[in-house]
Parts: sequence; structure tokens; C-alpha cells
Amino acid sequence: MAIAEISIVPVGTQTTSVSSFVAGAVTELKASGLDYRLTPMGTIIEGGLEQVMAVCTRMHASAFAGGALRVYTTIKIDDRRDGDEGPRMGHKVASVERKLKS
Amino acid sequence: MAIAEISIVPVGTQTTSVSSFVAGAVTELKASGLDYRLTPMGTIIEGGLEQVMAVCTRMHASAFAGGALRVYTTIKIDDRRDGDEGPRMGHKVASVERKLKS
Amino acid sequence: MAIAEISIVPVGTQTTSVSSFVAGAVTELKASGLDYRLTPMGTIIEGGLEQVMAVCTRMHASAFAGGALRVYTTIKIDDRRDGDEGPRMGHKVASVERKLKS
Amino acid sequence: MAIAEISIVPVGTQTTSVSSFVAGAVTELKASGLDYRLTPMGTIIEGGLEQVMAVCTRMHASAFAGGALRVYTTIKIDDRRDGDEGPRMGHKVASVERKLKS
Repeated sequence: MAIAEISIVPVGTQTTSVSSFVAGAVTELKASGLDYRLTPMGTIIEGGLEQVMAVCTRMHASAFAGGALRVYTTIKIDDRRDGDEGPRMGHKVASVERKLKS
Repeated sequence: MAIAEISIVPVGTQTTSVSSFVAGAVTELKASGLDYRLTPMGTIIEGGLEQVMAVCTRMHASAFAGGALRVYTTIKIDDRRDGDEGPRMGHKVASVERKLKS
Repeated sequence: MAIAEISIVPVGTQTTSVSSFVAGAVTELKASGLDYRLTPMGTIIEGGLEQVMAVCTRMHASAFAGGALRVYTTIKIDDRRDGDEGPRMGHKVASVERKLKS
Repeated sequence: MAIAEISIVPVGTQTTSVSSFVAGAVTELKASGLDYRLTPMGTIIEGGLEQVMAVCTRMHASAFAGGALRVYTTIKIDDRRDGDEGPRMGHKVASVERKLKS
């Protein structure tokens, strides 16, 4: 299991609002059935590496369907294969919070 | 007001766990008094651009204090100056969720 | 044609050197036949979106074959579809340099 | 010495061209006297961490002076403190190329 975060920024759209483009990308993501979480700076997705990369490709492409002529996308991937299951979205934050309290 | 996301990755630490480094950086962040939110892929910070960049610099440097010899940090900044207050962490996700429902 | 930049950072290795991991990823990239350019902060790749994303997936995965147990990868994609051919690596820098001179 | 890469993307401009914004940012960078290199996906800067972060802040802000109302900036920092001088732009690519040949 990998965790990825994707941020999609349309360029040259004449409006500073990007939420309709993000909503279009998340609609694509929902269709994949993968677990995800929206944050103020991106969308975090959990799944097998190949599945995650495939849905990121479709999410990026959805911005052109939404009317953008140029799209700038950033993807960060955290892929850990030393445990029996890899990183999980909930575990990562919980692990930091435990250390902050101790 | 700007929103930034910072991800700090120590390199060559002999352990795949990074949570103690993130906790050290968040301790630095807490001292700044800026609003923030932990996510599974980074820490999101809200504040004036100069303040945010200054605390990101201290958070990055804290990983060396924590024992790292090489640190790879990614910062994304979303800075909007067309409204009376700029983007806010809560507003951004709410705006996407409204569009998903409509 | 899209342009992407990929940076691969292994976590929990015994050394702060990452060049052997980058070399492994670039070997994978060379096999794809896509145009690319090495920079001090990543590898820039030019090609169709699907091809670029597929080779980025293989480059990321190559770090596990190289011995890493956790891999942190960042991908930036610049995809422009308003011209007859999209952005090209050489054109982008030349365009900035022209504006700097004028 | 740290190496950073900055990519500045204006949002809501009337054109998909971003080169005039990049040129404005590089003009700011030149005034700093720091070493830099333009790539098709960003601008790479070498210098002390504090200096690099300060110039990145000014480069980001320059896009507002250039007319943008929203600016999306990505900064990657590679900071290595285990040698006598840290990473250097030229060394990093040379090190990968040596390994590719061997």
C-alpha cells in the first residue's frame, strides 16, 4: 500500500478559483473506490502503487475535460514496504501525535 | 494570509520511521502560534507569508537537531490575494465539498 | 506532450548518498526511450502523459529493487494542450531567457 | 550550503504562459548574487539555507507584483550537512552520471 497526495492547478483559467477543477478530479477518484482524504492543500489517496498512479493520471487529465488548457500537477508518494501493510493514512498522524505527547 | 504545506524527509537515518522528526518540527511550529493541521502527507500552516516561510525554515532545520545529516523538504505555498482575507484552510475543503454535492 | 520532473528519495538507508538510487531509476528511464534531462534536483522527462506516468511508476519502484524499504517520490507535471505540440524542455528555458534579456 | 528548487505558478491569469512571471522571479534572484540554474521545470538555487529561503520568499512575492492574484509555489530543499561543504549542483549530476557509466 502506498499513500500519495495530488494537487492539481489549472493555469490560464481567468479565475483564481480552482475548486471546480478539484471537484472534477475527486469525482474521478471516487469512481476508483480507493480510500482518500481531502485536505486544504491536496487530495491524499491510499492504495496499491499502480492503482494510485493510474487514478492520479485520470485526475490530472480531468482538468482538461473541465476546460483548462494547461495543468500543473504535483504528486508526492510515500511508499513503505518494510512492514506487513505499509503506511496507513490514520497511522501516520497518530504516530506523530503520540510522540508530541510523550 | 498564505497556506503552506511542508513535508520533511530525513535521509540516511538507518530507520524508515520519520515520525520523531515530524514531531520535532511540529514542536517548533507550535512555538510560533500559527494555525496548523497535521495530515498523513505533511503539515499545513496558515499565516502571513513571511511568518510561514520563517517557521518552515526552522522546522526544516530542526531535523538536523534531531540527528539527521541530510534533509529533503518539500514546501507548497498557496497564496491568494484577491479577496479580503485570502484562502483559509477550512474554506478550501468546504468549497470542494459543496461542488461535489451540487 | 507533457513534461514531468521526478525526484526519488530513499528513506532509512545507511548512507546519505542517493546517487545509486537515482542511477537505477535513470537506467529504467533510458529503457523507455523517452527524452530526459538530469538536473541537480530531479530528472525531467518529456513524452505523452500516459508514457511519462508509467515510467515514473517504474522509476519509483526501482528504488525498492535497489534496496530501499521506504521511498519518497515527488512528481511535478506541466501539461499544456493549447498549442500544436505542448511545452518542450528546451523551449521553456529559452522563453524565460528571452524575457530576461528584453 | 543547501540546494533548493522553486517553481512558481500564477493562477487565474488570462494566459497559459508563465514565462514572464518566471523572468520576474529570476530578476529578483539575480539581485541576490546566489548561484542558480534555470531548468524546464523550475529554478535551482544554491546557498545558505536562510539566504535561499529569503530569496524564495521574494521570488514568490514577485509574481503578485507581476499581476497575479493567486500564486502556487513549490519549493524542494536538499540540505546535506555531513561533508565539509554539502551538496553542490554540479557534483550531484556528475555523481549520478559516474554511476550510470560504471
